[in-house]
Amino acid sequence: MQNFSPMKAQIISIGNELLIGDTINTNASWMGEFLNDLGVEVVRIHTISDDKDLIKSTISLSMKESDLVITTGGLGPTHDDITKTTIAELFGVEMIKDEMVEDHIRELFKSRNIPFSRSNVWQAYVPENCEILFNRAGTAPGMWFHENGCYLAVLPGVPYEMKYLMKKGVAEKLRALSDSIGYIHTQYLKVAGIGESTLSDEVLGDELKDFLNDHVSLAFLPSFGQIKLRVTGKGASKEEAQQRAGSLIGYIKEKAGDFLFAEDKDKPLAEAVGDLLRMQNKTIATAESCTGGLIASTITDIAGSSDYLLGGIVSYSNEVKIKELGVSAADIESYGAVSKSVALQMAKGVAEKLGTDIGLSATGVAGPGGGTDEKPVGTVWIGFYSHGQHFAVRALFSKDRLVNKERTTVTALEITRRILSGIDGLPYSLKKETI
Amino acid sequence: MQNFSPMKAQIISIGNELLIGDTINTNASWMGEFLNDLGVEVVRIHTISDDKDLIKSTISLSMKESDLVITTGGLGPTHDDITKTTIAELFGVEMIKDEMVEDHIRELFKSRNIPFSRSNVWQAYVPENCEILFNRAGTAPGMWFHENGCYLAVLPGVPYEMKYLMKKGVAEKLRALSDSIGYIHTQYLKVAGIGESTLSDEVLGDELKDFLNDHVSLAFLPSFGQIKLRVTGKGASKEEAQQRAGSLIGYIKEKAGDFLFAEDKDKPLAEAVGDLLRMQNKTIATAESCTGGLIASTITDIAGSSDYLLGGIVSYSNEVKIKELGVSAADIESYGAVSKSVALQMAKGVAEKLGTDIGLSATGVAGPGGGTDEKPVGTVWIGFYSHGQHFAVRALFSKDRLVNKERTTVTALEITRRILSGIDGLPYSLKKETI
Repeated sequence: MQNFSPMKAQIISIGNELLIGDTINTNASWMGEFLNDLGVEVVRIHTISDDKDLIKSTISLSMKESDLVITTGGLGPTHDDITKTTIAELFGVEMIKDEMVEDHIRELFKSRNIPFSRSNVWQAYVPENCEILFNRAGTAPGMWFHENGCYLAVLPGVPYEMKYLMKKGVAEKLRALSDSIGYIHTQYLKVAGIGESTLSDEVLGDELKDFLNDHVSLAFLPSFGQIKLRVTGKGASKEEAQQRAGSLIGYIKEKAGDFLFAEDKDKPLAEAVGDLLRMQNKTIATAESCTGGLIASTITDIAGSSDYLLGGIVSYSNEVKIKELGVSAADIESYGAVSKSVALQMAKGVAEKLGTDIGLSATGVAGPGGGTDEKPVGTVWIGFYSHGQHFAVRALFSKDRLVNKERTTVTALEITRRILSGIDGLPYSLKKETI
Repeated sequence: MQNFSPMKAQIISIGNELLIGDTINTNASWMGEFLNDLGVEVVRIHTISDDKDLIKSTISLSMKESDLVITTGGLGPTHDDITKTTIAELFGVEMIKDEMVEDHIRELFKSRNIPFSRSNVWQAYVPENCEILFNRAGTAPGMWFHENGCYLAVLPGVPYEMKYLMKKGVAEKLRALSDSIGYIHTQYLKVAGIGESTLSDEVLGDELKDFLNDHVSLAFLPSFGQIKLRVTGKGASKEEAQQRAGSLIGYIKEKAGDFLFAEDKDKPLAEAVGDLLRMQNKTIATAESCTGGLIASTITDIAGSSDYLLGGIVSYSNEVKIKELGVSAADIESYGAVSKSVALQMAKGVAEKLGTDIGLSATGVAGPGGGTDEKPVGTVWIGFYSHGQHFAVRALFSKDRLVNKERTTVTALEITRRILSGIDGLPYSLKKETI
């Protein structure tokens, strides 16, 4: 086996706005994913202010630790943009004017009919030891350095300019170096209906460890009742990396198959449910109290959902539950609006009223107020109705109103996915209760 | 004037998912803003992998450079969560079990009816030199250290758990230290119904510059048709900082009063609308097509919204529009489902059916498919009905389905806020169209 180690990279995001929450650092996320797909492993991201000493020390440290360093930000024409002069100082070189860049900027201003000022000429100056990464998307040139065995790319912070230069300049440079670096293959599995620790301890079990080593790793990325599993394989060739990831993927699919709803990291649970509905030519409607429309809204986040979602009733008041969904006023009186009986009637009521194959309902105590000893905040009844199936489940989520809405929605969708997939057993160890 | 220097902080975000673009680091942005509001200056954010040596060296370096270091992530129950054992190693201390935390976790699992497994007990172990920041929002405890003159807070990466512990644990600790640091007073104004450049250039105008200086700053933070304005005043005392911010606040309120819906940064537009409905003792219902329930869901994100939202109809199919909302089938045939006529009928239909004072409707081409030359993707009709008022507006938003749902919701709510507030003129220069 050939020995290899993937190229290691660090990203340095420069800009005060990133430190005080005015701007979320989406650049660094995008670059991390882009580099990962190129087989380059990002080991650190630094977010720092436009401070000369900090820029110098962070670049120096990163260049010592890694094979590639990429900075973004601080290349604009104003006084607080100090990245490139700081880098010239760091390398002890002069700033020189690049004629081609100057011509490009002059052209750009002319075509936009904007006056060309002194501060714009300054954008054509670069440290003399760099190679220009030509920026057709804007006025600030990208720069490429190779010093002390490390590559340094210096890019503007404007997202579409950065992306242009990553795709055109940096990717081309890296491809030229690719034989000397290894490959990374990353694959995702998305599961729902199970907690992180139960999945890890009970479903995947101790055997999981046999699959993990220096070349194969697994990460759990949970959110609101769903877990994204990331499997990464490393190898000297693309095939080797894929094959290594593949063995763990196979094991997880075998063990956790019932919980798996997607193999594409960007595919939401609602889309998995939608695919099943479309394939089985079934329609669905929602009857929502505590979720206030979130289940229907989540289903309609998916393009083409009009194929299967006919509509829904948000029955926030008892009157609407009674008048529009046919829930018995006496049952609301006897059992309360948050009850098995009401959830069952809401699900059946909406399916019959809108003429769908499936009716899905939710009624609960979203909070923060309204809890009792018997029905604390976070208590939710979810109802499911289709030809021949009619049941409700009781769940207890959190104290947080928005978390309760989100968890209820995920659970309702996951129940539907399981029924449509013919999987026995409900998610999160919930129990079916019937009339 | 007394000289002061704000406490300096660094944030360390731990997790491979942040380096390869699986998760955008919104935690760090939120913390940067939160700390800034408390008068703490964030000077660096580090994003690193779950790597023992890197965690150690980054924490060591940050603690040398700053007064406060906060880490997030790596506190889960699985094998790749190594933050707390690494910190114990760094300080050369043992891990000990905290009985209170264990009891809390057992209770939580019991109440949710989830089996308690071996890896969950491990969550109750913490380095012996820490003070527990008790986490009612989840199972991983926060930790607070004071070593070598620097404070270190160790928090989970799950956003709502992190936020809970920042607000409860970290903020309380910092307030106790506040006399030794300078004061920053931050105040927010939230506006809707106007674009950023129109607000800046035409409404606030050149005079705005007279209010800005080293002690007073203004940031525009736009999102989906709303803008959060952050005004920051700095001073040697709380009063001085407040008074400096106050003069700019006064100017903005005078100039942009009609657009202002909240002075609390966490108050959503839906809450401002809800306050008006409750004050005026009015009820509302929604009839939603392209938003698929998002308007009702957004209204019900607010606790107590059952006081004014009676319910809604998600009329995704034409059949539901006709049968449940009384929309004329002939009009759908003549004008299309995305039309003034249908929006008007939906709004009136739902108000009459559910017996509310106000009916609010939306029908549009959410995309990505379904656009035509006459009605491109992003075309939306919003309808409004109340006693004596009945109109619709046509808007054109974006090519993105989720952006269109969000913008439609904000615009519908802002129209309602203006009508309820008796403000002339619609948001975003939209025009009322009647039958």
